[in-house]
Amino acid sequence: MKDFTVTTGSICGSQKTYRSIPSYADIQVPFRKVALSTSDEEAVLLYDTSGAYTDHNAHISLENGLPSIREEWLKKRDFQSIPAAYPHQHSSVAYCPASYHIRQGKKGKHVTQLQYAQAGIVTEEMAYAAWRENLGHTQQEDDDLPLRGERVGPALPRIITPEFVREEIAAGRAILPANINHPELEPMVIGRNFLVKVNANIGNSAVTAGAAEEVEKMVWATRWGADTIMDLSTGKHIQNIRSWMLRNSPVPVGTVPIYEVLEKVGNDPLALNWEIFRDTLIEQAEQGVDYFTIHAGLRLKHIPLTSQRVTGIVSRGGSILARWCLDGHRENFLYEHFEDICAICQRYDVALSLGDGLRPGSIADANDAAQFAELETLGELTHKAWAAGCQVMIEGPGHVPMNLIRENVTKQEALCGEAPFYTLGPLTTDIAPGYDHITSGIGAAMIGWFGTAMLCYVTPKEHLGLPDRDDVKTGVITYKIAAHAADLAKGHPSAHYRDDALSRARFSFRWEDQFNLSLDPDTARAFHDETMPKEAHKTA
Amino acid sequence: MKDFTVTTGSICGSQKTYRSIPSYADIQVPFRKVALSTSDEEAVLLYDTSGAYTDHNAHISLENGLPSIREEWLKKRDFQSIPAAYPHQHSSVAYCPASYHIRQGKKGKHVTQLQYAQAGIVTEEMAYAAWRENLGHTQQEDDDLPLRGERVGPALPRIITPEFVREEIAAGRAILPANINHPELEPMVIGRNFLVKVNANIGNSAVTAGAAEEVEKMVWATRWGADTIMDLSTGKHIQNIRSWMLRNSPVPVGTVPIYEVLEKVGNDPLALNWEIFRDTLIEQAEQGVDYFTIHAGLRLKHIPLTSQRVTGIVSRGGSILARWCLDGHRENFLYEHFEDICAICQRYDVALSLGDGLRPGSIADANDAAQFAELETLGELTHKAWAAGCQVMIEGPGHVPMNLIRENVTKQEALCGEAPFYTLGPLTTDIAPGYDHITSGIGAAMIGWFGTAMLCYVTPKEHLGLPDRDDVKTGVITYKIAAHAADLAKGHPSAHYRDDALSRARFSFRWEDQFNLSLDPDTARAFHDETMPKEAHKTA
Repeated sequence: MKDFTVTTGSICGSQKTYRSIPSYADIQVPFRKVALSTSDEEAVLLYDTSGAYTDHNAHISLENGLPSIREEWLKKRDFQSIPAAYPHQHSSVAYCPASYHIRQGKKGKHVTQLQYAQAGIVTEEMAYAAWRENLGHTQQEDDDLPLRGERVGPALPRIITPEFVREEIAAGRAILPANINHPELEPMVIGRNFLVKVNANIGNSAVTAGAAEEVEKMVWATRWGADTIMDLSTGKHIQNIRSWMLRNSPVPVGTVPIYEVLEKVGNDPLALNWEIFRDTLIEQAEQGVDYFTIHAGLRLKHIPLTSQRVTGIVSRGGSILARWCLDGHRENFLYEHFEDICAICQRYDVALSLGDGLRPGSIADANDAAQFAELETLGELTHKAWAAGCQVMIEGPGHVPMNLIRENVTKQEALCGEAPFYTLGPLTTDIAPGYDHITSGIGAAMIGWFGTAMLCYVTPKEHLGLPDRDDVKTGVITYKIAAHAADLAKGHPSAHYRDDALSRARFSFRWEDQFNLSLDPDTARAFHDETMPKEAHKTA
Repeated sequence: MKDFTVTTGSICGSQKTYRSIPSYADIQVPFRKVALSTSDEEAVLLYDTSGAYTDHNAHISLENGLPSIREEWLKKRDFQSIPAAYPHQHSSVAYCPASYHIRQGKKGKHVTQLQYAQAGIVTEEMAYAAWRENLGHTQQEDDDLPLRGERVGPALPRIITPEFVREEIAAGRAILPANINHPELEPMVIGRNFLVKVNANIGNSAVTAGAAEEVEKMVWATRWGADTIMDLSTGKHIQNIRSWMLRNSPVPVGTVPIYEVLEKVGNDPLALNWEIFRDTLIEQAEQGVDYFTIHAGLRLKHIPLTSQRVTGIVSRGGSILARWCLDGHRENFLYEHFEDICAICQRYDVALSLGDGLRPGSIADANDAAQFAELETLGELTHKAWAAGCQVMIEGPGHVPMNLIRENVTKQEALCGEAPFYTLGPLTTDIAPGYDHITSGIGAAMIGWFGTAMLCYVTPKEHLGLPDRDDVKTGVITYKIAAHAADLAKGHPSAHYRDDALSRARFSFRWEDQFNLSLDPDTARAFHDETMPKEAHKTA
């Protein structure tokens, strides 16, 4: 990694700024500040997921990792320091040398954000996340006017307070994924009453390269607005590559542990077993993974429901487990060991993301009996996770025509007690491979409006190949559009500032302001300059 | 134009085929036929907007124009042949030399498709358009199963019959834009109970080139699926460039006549007058323009309603006319001469597309008093157009957050007697210049589902510059996605065949079939080959 560098420097037209929070002297919340070319308007603060990489004052060293901004907060909580449960893998990819010690919660003590919230305690993480949601506003303008947007569900408050974040987490309606072993994390909150978040999947595979490329993809994805990343690596050196990602990620990192487990058992689904799975969870939890996708809702009895489908079982995790279940006509061991999984997650505060192994893989299969049978089981598991003190969200489809999208949210809310919903798209048609960021961006915007808390991006390479750097950017920007359109529609109190500021800039022909306020200033400027290349045009 | 050629040849993986219609011996309806690599499934027929350019048996000559497939049908109707009302412009761009004579309807006789429909007559155009809607199916499979999709409004029939097309046109719920001076046209129907259509705007401007480029853009846009094109040229030689486009366009051509009128009066809005406008309408009608955008709904009294807007009046036609009205504090002359406009349109069967000069230009201005006041006037004008025997559709916004989209359709249906709605997007957020095909594709899909009959595409260059060839393709494909997602959601009987066929190909790893069934086979194949370049992978 020595010679490897990641993308740093400000996003065009903005500067990193930090705001302190009243009564939390040691918390500095990051924003991107866009100064405008007119003296009539104040600078616009934007939500910033990009971490220290866009701070020109920060010294970036991948070997040292990011600063541990949560260290002082975590120290005050009654955790124990423990040695690593398992030795590092021997591998041609070195383990990240950043200094690091492993924490674990003590038995019977609060560890998770859910437990703190239910005990009435507002953590520093909650305050930090709340302040990000308000985009630096301490009061919304026009307090006497009704909020714009059409909320599907209860009304949103005018200002997102730390106490509101606590209430939503305590109710299970939101999660704050923040493993106590990921002190570098800049906390954020995922829930239907907050800004809609975006996840970017990255990860190496047998056919592509190693850690350097993946860390840069993570930095690149968060630069453009990814709120979390999932490491879906399936090749060799998974654990060691992940050490670099975790020590250098400012956003929550999710994984699908069964991918690593499958590598360990020589890629033979029938060789899977609980013991290796358990060890893998502990290893990953000690590294600092913030959330796990667990396909515990796919039960043996659900599998025959897929027999008439056009596209069978398309989730990788789902098809691995279905194979395992059918082989011995046995129940999914993740379902049977779900309490054990929760016990591990609770000790490190790893949030559970309950996977939808039976999600539809085509328009034809949307909202079918298999999908909803699994969702019912996910509802049962949600309540078990809560009982164990664990934070939990629910994964959703996939491929759904527009007219069937709302039913997904309605059923998920009812069955899973309003736990946050986290969907992949959904794609609203199957006829446009090469453009599935768009087929799914349509569905993502709609399902976000209806109440989905986080959207898993889809890149132009979906169904065709592995995304490169440009695809990652296109996927993230498309999903930021979907998430923001949803925030406007549901009336998040901070959503409209940026649209209004950009629209005023547009109407006044303040081209530079228009570029700088956009999701992708580089592309906006380049497109403009292509046909109207003269500087004079930009200030016309 | 001598050395200029346009893109010809089959779209990858498909072949042009023609199907005859029972009891219409002289009608041959074009489709794209995709043969599959499995013997288990029949070839898939796709709707084809690309004209003779994708027929390898056709001889293409831009000087001669396309074959006049409507000639025999038009001959049988009682029209008069007339000399051109105005001499051709002298211009460095030659007039298209294709042989051509001008037709005009006789007083008191049926001319328009609306008049024929209301007289109970099914025209050849209606039969042709009906057969295209069914994608070559003469009977839907599973006739006893309920149609998929969720229709907003009355149920769709299982098969689109010529008689159903007539009924919808007679009711004013659909239009079949087909100027009697555009015999080269392949007829199609626009209405909420048919496949959602897509329009592509092209046209030269002062800063870009001439006829050659624009004809190729037209061929290119229809190759990828544009159902109509609008020529928005604003530079010199407008009339002569348009002659090339009309003689070579297989799809309806729309214009915004006030653009040409403004050129004629030296680009001074205050010099506009009815006489020049009238002459321009007649010239364009005699050339064969199939529909006119007319901003007759913007009245003097509406203009003050825009004063508190963030982005004022953003429609070009709207702002020209507002300037004219405000100058003399006078009523819009297009409103005052609307009956005269209808009389011209009736004689040639030019459909009216009533422009929304006060459409919102930002999320902040959506669904405001100015927009809806104009819409009310458009409703009044719709009924006047019908009374004059004219086909009419209504243009809609623009920029609308998702939660306000449905109200646009509901109000338009109520005020305009269910005349077809034709919207520009709408964009669902303003923060992504460079990606406005996506911000608007989201809104377009939704408004299409709710009942909008045609979607005007938006390209990535919207708000930033003029679209090039790649932008045109990206805009068209994005809008084909939106339109098709809408067709699936509203349950058009032909919508799901292609999705299901592609999904089966995907699940069976029939890569070539998957590519060939997609909206853009070239891109799908290229993306796949980028990371998995070996032929073996494609048949794995």
